[in-house]
Amino acid sequence: MRKKIWEYVIAVRESAPLVHNITNYVVMNTTANALLAAGASPIMAHAQEEIEDMVNICQSVVINMGTLDPYWSQSMLLAAECAHKHNKPFIFDPVGTGASSYRNKIASAILALRPTVIRGNASEIMALASLNPGKTKGVDSTHQSNEAIIAGQTLVRDYGAVVCISGATDIILSGNREVHLNNGHPLMTKVTGLGCSATALLGAFSSLGKDIFETSVAATALISIAGEIAAEKSSGPGSLQLNLLDTLYTLTEQEFDKRLKLTNIK
Amino acid sequence: MRKKIWEYVIAVRESAPLVHNITNYVVMNTTANALLAAGASPIMAHAQEEIEDMVNICQSVVINMGTLDPYWSQSMLLAAECAHKHNKPFIFDPVGTGASSYRNKIASAILALRPTVIRGNASEIMALASLNPGKTKGVDSTHQSNEAIIAGQTLVRDYGAVVCISGATDIILSGNREVHLNNGHPLMTKVTGLGCSATALLGAFSSLGKDIFETSVAATALISIAGEIAAEKSSGPGSLQLNLLDTLYTLTEQEFDKRLKLTNIK
Amino acid sequence: MRKKIWEYVIAVRESAPLVHNITNYVVMNTTANALLAAGASPIMAHAQEEIEDMVNICQSVVINMGTLDPYWSQSMLLAAECAHKHNKPFIFDPVGTGASSYRNKIASAILALRPTVIRGNASEIMALASLNPGKTKGVDSTHQSNEAIIAGQTLVRDYGAVVCISGATDIILSGNREVHLNNGHPLMTKVTGLGCSATALLGAFSSLGKDIFETSVAATALISIAGEIAAEKSSGPGSLQLNLLDTLYTLTEQEFDKRLKLTNIK
Repeated sequence: MRKKIWEYVIAVRESAPLVHNITNYVVMNTTANALLAAGASPIMAHAQEEIEDMVNICQSVVINMGTLDPYWSQSMLLAAECAHKHNKPFIFDPVGTGASSYRNKIASAILALRPTVIRGNASEIMALASLNPGKTKGVDSTHQSNEAIIAGQTLVRDYGAVVCISGATDIILSGNREVHLNNGHPLMTKVTGLGCSATALLGAFSSLGKDIFETSVAATALISIAGEIAAEKSSGPGSLQLNLLDTLYTLTEQEFDKRLKLTNIK
Repeated sequence: MRKKIWEYVIAVRESAPLVHNITNYVVMNTTANALLAAGASPIMAHAQEEIEDMVNICQSVVINMGTLDPYWSQSMLLAAECAHKHNKPFIFDPVGTGASSYRNKIASAILALRPTVIRGNASEIMALASLNPGKTKGVDSTHQSNEAIIAGQTLVRDYGAVVCISGATDIILSGNREVHLNNGHPLMTKVTGLGCSATALLGAFSSLGKDIFETSVAATALISIAGEIAAEKSSGPGSLQLNLLDTLYTLTEQEFDKRLKLTNIK
Repeated sequence: MRKKIWEYVIAVRESAPLVHNITNYVVMNTTANALLAAGASPIMAHAQEEIEDMVNICQSVVINMGTLDPYWSQSMLLAAECAHKHNKPFIFDPVGTGASSYRNKIASAILALRPTVIRGNASEIMALASLNPGKTKGVDSTHQSNEAIIAGQTLVRDYGAVVCISGATDIILSGNREVHLNNGHPLMTKVTGLGCSATALLGAFSSLGKDIFETSVAATALISIAGEIAAEKSSGPGSLQLNLLDTLYTLTEQEFDKRLKLTNIK
């Protein structure tokens, strides 16, 4: 798989997929720039009147419920339905699931529409699998990613999604596969929107029409390795943010391959 | 004109015009910082209850329909009407025109209110002139700017606007004038919101009360030259973003003049 | 107090307080990153269905009315009410008060709910104290901070708040105390959202459960000193933005203490 995942990085750069994002206000700029730096082309549009048109011209749909409200929640559900209708992959980032009962209700409704890929931190994945409120401390995880493996496997089994659990170790799960990635850097948790950027990249990579598990590993490896390289050059979270975009744009196969710490669990 | 356009850059720095922006969520931070770096003062306000007050205290109005929805569309139309009522220039950025029929409908309604200046990429200007859906690939142009000259001339003739077509060559059109600018850098297309920042600067420069065609050339030249200088110092789109703001703030007449590639077509 | 305020900086880093922000679109990313860099953990959520849940899990609430509209205004008022109900400090940033009568009406309603801390520039504090429209030039101050002391004292007396007036000199007022801080740098006014970031930090520091006047001095000193150090390293507003985040993250007691220009007026 090591060889193939770099090919996916190149394929995104060459095909410049259009990715339709309904995401949160805090990270829109960050995730649009991450998509551009990785070679994709972002669209951000939430008006219900145009969602079907937008899904139709895009290659994938990213739904991130960070700053949801009643109007945006409806837009997210509509986009998920349109993704199925037009046969486009849709990625779900259940930001802050567990922090409020309203958020849990919306997460549950989006989940029922069977996302192609789900990405969250351990607390979010555990809250999503149980949908019991009160288990999340806001939007930052209070758990290690390996604590969420059983919850992730539940989501895989019940909804047929590939599940990515972000953390010091990133864990990618599908029905019969499990990969662990040990890239990244702790400083990445001090910049808002890098998890959301990972989700956006999952959208870009899902549009390649290849094995969704493998492209999900590739997207996760790309941002983790770029973040790791960027963090080593940075004197704090401000410079990390810009170095990450520069590195996403300039990363070479040699550097990627040298850094990649991928373990096939099964 | 070369001499005068630098004088406009200085005039914005010295007069610090207040620019009222109704723009999209993705670029609000970027365009506010671009306005500040160029010496202007941004206001972002979309509540219909306060639009007339805001237009009244500002020197110009910028309407960018990137992340439009029904409420924001009404705010945009109201701001355009208030701009006429209070005799302030209003700039229109028809982001993504052609990508959905809803977007076309709103673009058409804003256009009917006769913007002072219209800025878009070639695909947007062509879609706006024809208002036939389906000609745009999302928000990035699939055409070169010179392919859109006839479309731009149609907008000039039918709506009396100055039209700026962004691209590798920036083209500025009015009833009897046409200027081509060959500044800028390809890396600028890998940062979200630089076109929107150009539109915001068009707002700042339009507030000077000078010839709108000439101030539009000046605003376009400023961001293109600043982007070109910034890109040459940058190792990717992340550093470009910050170097652009630094350069907008520090650019000197000497540097500007040395770089400026302006062709008077007529 | 000098010794104690550094202890508050450390206490925020160590306790990583959750801060619930209802703030404006322009600065959400900037203020979330400022909170993270200072060691706090931001939540941004505005849906009325989840505000009480969010206030309940957070340690403090920040209300910034920059891009208010009818829905968001209701969310702000609800969050302020929940802050009282759940006994959490709430910080109010009256962005642009005086610029429209609608904005004045909402500012007045939020003020009536008795914020724990109010932070604004001199024009905003003066407009808030008088609630006469038309005294503000947009969102940038047209007054020096010391011109607003009487207005600030009026707010202290009538609403029981600690009042922070930002400017070249930052002034912090409570019933019987007044501190002036002479840190910061003029370049900070060329980056959008640094005042809003100061407000967000006031939220983080208010959550420590210590003397609110002293923690407000600490939050204000932290961002002013970090901004001053960052500006000296920067070649313009773009690099200032990232250097500020880096400095918030890495600032040491020695550097803080060497820079701190604090005057106890009373």
